[in-house]
Amino acid sequence: MTRAWTLASRPSGVPADEDFALIDIDLPPLKEGEVRVANRWLSVDPYMRGRMNDVKSYVPPFQLGAPMDGGAIGEVVESRADALRPGDMVQHMAGWRDAAVIPAAAAQKLPALEVPPQAFLGQLGMPGMTAYFGLLAVGEAKPGDTVFVSAAAGAVGSTVVQVAKAKGMTVIGSAGGSDKCAWVRDLGADQVIDYKADEPLVKALGRAAPEGIDVYFDNVGGQHLDAAIAHAKPRGRLAICGMIDMYNTGAPTTLRYAARIIGARLKIEGFIVSDYMDRADEFYREMGALLADGRFRREETVFEGIEQTPAAFRGLFTGENRGKMLVKI
Amino acid sequence: MTRAWTLASRPSGVPADEDFALIDIDLPPLKEGEVRVANRWLSVDPYMRGRMNDVKSYVPPFQLGAPMDGGAIGEVVESRADALRPGDMVQHMAGWRDAAVIPAAAAQKLPALEVPPQAFLGQLGMPGMTAYFGLLAVGEAKPGDTVFVSAAAGAVGSTVVQVAKAKGMTVIGSAGGSDKCAWVRDLGADQVIDYKADEPLVKALGRAAPEGIDVYFDNVGGQHLDAAIAHAKPRGRLAICGMIDMYNTGAPTTLRYAARIIGARLKIEGFIVSDYMDRADEFYREMGALLADGRFRREETVFEGIEQTPAAFRGLFTGENRGKMLVKI
Repeated sequence: MTRAWTLASRPSGVPADEDFALIDIDLPPLKEGEVRVANRWLSVDPYMRGRMNDVKSYVPPFQLGAPMDGGAIGEVVESRADALRPGDMVQHMAGWRDAAVIPAAAAQKLPALEVPPQAFLGQLGMPGMTAYFGLLAVGEAKPGDTVFVSAAAGAVGSTVVQVAKAKGMTVIGSAGGSDKCAWVRDLGADQVIDYKADEPLVKALGRAAPEGIDVYFDNVGGQHLDAAIAHAKPRGRLAICGMIDMYNTGAPTTLRYAARIIGARLKIEGFIVSDYMDRADEFYREMGALLADGRFRREETVFEGIEQTPAAFRGLFTGENRGKMLVKI
Repeated sequence: MTRAWTLASRPSGVPADEDFALIDIDLPPLKEGEVRVANRWLSVDPYMRGRMNDVKSYVPPFQLGAPMDGGAIGEVVESRADALRPGDMVQHMAGWRDAAVIPAAAAQKLPALEVPPQAFLGQLGMPGMTAYFGLLAVGEAKPGDTVFVSAAAGAVGSTVVQVAKAKGMTVIGSAGGSDKCAWVRDLGADQVIDYKADEPLVKALGRAAPEGIDVYFDNVGGQHLDAAIAHAKPRGRLAICGMIDMYNTGAPTTLRYAARIIGARLKIEGFIVSDYMDRADEFYREMGALLADGRFRREETVFEGIEQTPAAFRGLFTGENRGKMLVKI
């Protein structure tokens, strides 16, 4: 027996407590090639909101009543696979639950890097890879470029800020509220925009980047995207990673500056981190080195206990996290 | 003395008669290296609308009271330059007027191709290059792709349709009204959408391309762009050439399907034909061959007399042209 979160109903807007149910499920006996994993850390990420709707997307929707998935770090406690032994720490996708029986092939043994295991759900995991490849591969950001990143206090955004600074770029980050903005500045951002302040975003960005931006890393969509289009330099690149502004509302995106896409020859490109899995070695090598030299800040917002998972998830949309949002079991 | 159109006032919305004034100007005597050109054909193009506003763009705004510019075909009638002789037919940018004195370096002698001279304002000129490089270089369209093009009855769109068919693509074109739609089908389009019909565009496109589109060639923006985003296949390319929907209104672009930019990893890229001038030889060779084999349709809508230039220009926005809109002097 183990406990697992299921989706009880498809949320409208920000998910409510009643949309989730914690149920008991049986764990089957191991078959050949399988392992039993006791989860230690669960990841909650904005993209999961999309899976709560019943629409076709790049990841299939969660099924009502079935255990939900998501990134997790666990310890192998029983194994019928040669590749993994009890005591091994692994990363896998059977999150939102205490324990799981999974094929060993679906679990990745954590690389031997000098970081705590939950870092593989953050800067050394999916959010870190998203930041790294979105900035450097999709956004084609180069030393000397001016980079604007939204949700700069989030797991992805805060890593974008630091990778960009490590690579010699000028960074403008946006975040909501003075505390987060102060933290983004601590991370090294040259300019910080509080999007909750009175000044219209498009005006604030113009002040922060009077000569324009070369790259925009979009976690937010909506007005942030419009402001970035307004201030992109000729041949600017906009790497579209997330649109948290519309995940709950489904509101359309209104672009007042769309004509600049032509005039400034902008390139707006969406991406999904899994497309870059074949470059994971490069990522671990580079990001491992950046983390090892000690200048990188790794921040976590931790909720304790599996019972808190929905609350942690909701916190992503109400701005409660600084850095990576995690649940510790 | 010659006659030249000037901008009398900056239009709001579709330009009115009063926004233009035909004035007499002196032609200076030729300096060394200059030629006098008598214009035979004037081009009017949608992009000129942007130059009528006093805003910074990729081409500077027209100055009030000064002769306007634009593509033109003229005959050299006097020369103080070695490269050009009286009788030579040239293409240049001193349009919107009867005659002009210009540096020989600013006039391009028409290539020796078996087409009438005004073709160099259409399929063998800027609109043709726009269609060719927008489809093949920006949109990266390949044989077998499904291509959607808006304003498919226009100078650029009708060329996109024909280049795409010549290259073995499936083509869906949109145009306004049954006459234009019939003509676009005659050009070879596999499916035609009448955007003035009752069916919402996003639904019509879904019916025309049930498996989605690989490439969208955008001349229109607005709902056309939104529909293309809704139906683009994974890794679809959207080449943004024009947004005639907003040139006069300045209306914002509302995207209801923006989240697909991420989910389907779409690339949306703006371009300006002048960026491809260094590949002009390739263009003349390829497009010349396509025109020479006789399958290409070259259609013109011609207004007679320089007095008609503003009316011809306005017709671009009220849907009066099929193929290239021209003024014959």
